[in-house]
Amino acid sequence: MIEPVILKGFRDSLPKDEIPKKKIIRVLEDQFESYGFAPIDTPVLEYTEVLLGKGGGETDKQIFRFKDNGGRDVAMRFDLTVPFARFMASHHDEVGVPFKRYHISKVWRGENPQKGRYREFTQCDFDIVGADNALSDAEILSLMHASFAALGIENYKFHLSHRGLFTRFLSQLDAEKDSVEILRTVDKLRKIGEEEVKKALTEITASEEKAEKIIAFITSGDGCSFMETLEKLESLSGGRSEESERMREIYSILSSLGIEKSFIFDPSITRGLDYYTGIVYETFLTDLQSIGSVCSGGRYNDLASLYMKEKLPGVGASIGLDRLLAALDELKSPLLTNSASADLLIVLQKGEEAKASLIARNARAMGLNTAIYLNPDAKMKKIYAFAEANSIPYLLTLTEDSYTVKDLRTRETEAGEDALKHIAEGKRH
Amino acid sequence: MIEPVILKGFRDSLPKDEIPKKKIIRVLEDQFESYGFAPIDTPVLEYTEVLLGKGGGETDKQIFRFKDNGGRDVAMRFDLTVPFARFMASHHDEVGVPFKRYHISKVWRGENPQKGRYREFTQCDFDIVGADNALSDAEILSLMHASFAALGIENYKFHLSHRGLFTRFLSQLDAEKDSVEILRTVDKLRKIGEEEVKKALTEITASEEKAEKIIAFITSGDGCSFMETLEKLESLSGGRSEESERMREIYSILSSLGIEKSFIFDPSITRGLDYYTGIVYETFLTDLQSIGSVCSGGRYNDLASLYMKEKLPGVGASIGLDRLLAALDELKSPLLTNSASADLLIVLQKGEEAKASLIARNARAMGLNTAIYLNPDAKMKKIYAFAEANSIPYLLTLTEDSYTVKDLRTRETEAGEDALKHIAEGKRH
Repeated sequence: MIEPVILKGFRDSLPKDEIPKKKIIRVLEDQFESYGFAPIDTPVLEYTEVLLGKGGGETDKQIFRFKDNGGRDVAMRFDLTVPFARFMASHHDEVGVPFKRYHISKVWRGENPQKGRYREFTQCDFDIVGADNALSDAEILSLMHASFAALGIENYKFHLSHRGLFTRFLSQLDAEKDSVEILRTVDKLRKIGEEEVKKALTEITASEEKAEKIIAFITSGDGCSFMETLEKLESLSGGRSEESERMREIYSILSSLGIEKSFIFDPSITRGLDYYTGIVYETFLTDLQSIGSVCSGGRYNDLASLYMKEKLPGVGASIGLDRLLAALDELKSPLLTNSASADLLIVLQKGEEAKASLIARNARAMGLNTAIYLNPDAKMKKIYAFAEANSIPYLLTLTEDSYTVKDLRTRETEAGEDALKHIAEGKRH
Repeated sequence: MIEPVILKGFRDSLPKDEIPKKKIIRVLEDQFESYGFAPIDTPVLEYTEVLLGKGGGETDKQIFRFKDNGGRDVAMRFDLTVPFARFMASHHDEVGVPFKRYHISKVWRGENPQKGRYREFTQCDFDIVGADNALSDAEILSLMHASFAALGIENYKFHLSHRGLFTRFLSQLDAEKDSVEILRTVDKLRKIGEEEVKKALTEITASEEKAEKIIAFITSGDGCSFMETLEKLESLSGGRSEESERMREIYSILSSLGIEKSFIFDPSITRGLDYYTGIVYETFLTDLQSIGSVCSGGRYNDLASLYMKEKLPGVGASIGLDRLLAALDELKSPLLTNSASADLLIVLQKGEEAKASLIARNARAMGLNTAIYLNPDAKMKKIYAFAEANSIPYLLTLTEDSYTVKDLRTRETEAGEDALKHIAEGKRH
């Protein structure tokens, strides 16, 4: 006998988790498609050189990498961005630009598993490439807003900033040469706190004054409206600029859509990666700040430079689906509490197989997900336990000439086809 | 610059392929859920020992297997059955039986890629475990029928047989000891033809007479009704038996559901694998026999014997999604021809970003998938080409005080919100 163990950092998804996960994915897909984003998929395995060309460094150690049977150096994808860059270099002409794609799929990282972090997890990316203007930025932000609304999440804020504005400010401060390190340090603000960031910045810039000015910059949005913050930052970064104008335009589009209240101008958002050049954003759930950002991204000016000469500017975002699921679970979202594998369970009696099948067929045709309890010898106690374990709300029992349907929550009973009609009506509303 | 190549036997999925694939998956998921099947997922990577315990032999060479960074011997799953067996051994008590699960996901095999065969492909499995009776068998068959109907496939037949009946016949023939080899040989009938099968059977049984009798058995359904074939086989296998009674019961349930005409009793169906013990089936598209079976499976009496003591009988089927897609493509199924990434494309004019956004918002609220062409400098020729390449049927152009919508297929134009309402109505019907 082999012990049925699974690998550290991996996990099975049982119906109670997989049903809500699939629901959430459908809600997101519907939103993406509503905005004209098209799905793509790429291989899970690629040449290591193709995947690591860009990452290198830390990612290198975290990757699942091996030699295949043909001796090729291959690796499992660790994100959906690198494969997308490779995809665009391969299919640029075929798909045409501006190209809007979404990709919901698993990625793998060999990092040490911690609470809530796994070696296998699902990413959900959406990007617009081949366009660099305020409307593209606003479309991504508007789609994020529509997605969170469709998921029924109530209290969330999109924290928005602009990397270019920050760079302008740093050059005013004569601290441009350390910008990469400064951006990475500021990115840790939520994790390590203002004191620690200030200490680190003082070290990097070799100046307590500069560190203080940077802290003042990244906290200048506190308690201010979007436009107030924008004006403050303009003055701190040397006046109006292309970058501040872009922010103004984006805000104007969000306002005309009536969704601007969900967006906060938060100059402490930098995203650690060199990659971003324009707007950057993170998303926090008001009632669950501790979980960190559940949807992040930004604008980059060149997606696929590793694989092609043509510049491909873009803007996109990524939802950490597992983190979002954990959050919705903790917030007791209705999307997660309903994980019934069926609406109706039919109790099977021996010799009544054809009758049970026919009733099931009719119930299914009415739109009710219908299971027959396929063990005719089971005791009622076991059947009730099964219905409860699977969150099935209605139990149908055959009678001599018809059947009765019991609502397992209210204990109310109704007989005959009318019972099914009422449940089906209730489901549609 | 790195060449953006992908591995031999792997492929990207572009929107024109991924959109229909996702549609088909949704149709199938809806059917599975309508029958009370619940989704599960398992890790892509598992301990090699756990995955290969059962397979061994040929599968061994075809597997993507390697040592991970922790020195563990791991492998990518090569089917969804072995992980399901391991899953049931791990979660038997938690999920309860009878358990009905479906699993649609990718699997990997290192075999040499041929036309239409890839090293990465999508399987779609559905099983009922923990029940051994005619109704469970009939539920799987009825679900297969409902799925094919929902996919809008018109001409298909489910070819059904029973492994136990065949075994009884072989024991009548005193050829039981060679049954594994005989079953595997008969399984090749469609591939290599009757003559070759007869030759091989003569060799295996060392008797031309036996070979002829086996051929007579497996072709005894030709031109006969289900019940005629059943009676013939009963007499060839020593009279009525538990197995023939099971077939009778299954047929009776299918008949009461009015779907029996889609099922053919075809004793040449054996499925090569030792694994099956009861009914077995394959599915052929009448207009595309050459593609082979697109949905196969059967009843087994012990799913997880490798990992647990308790016997877990079950019945299930597997749809080769990529093969089915190739078939639907060749049959020009309407499911595949509509791969539009949006219903409506809005032409963007500079300075009209807010207006375009608002129109998009309204169109989306009406249920129209709406893209804005995000390059305001593009020539109309390029926009038309984009709409055509992405199969987008309607083009919206801003006018001074409103907009016009053009049907790109009929070239007809309508102005204002009524145009959108009409398209939305058309989409709902």
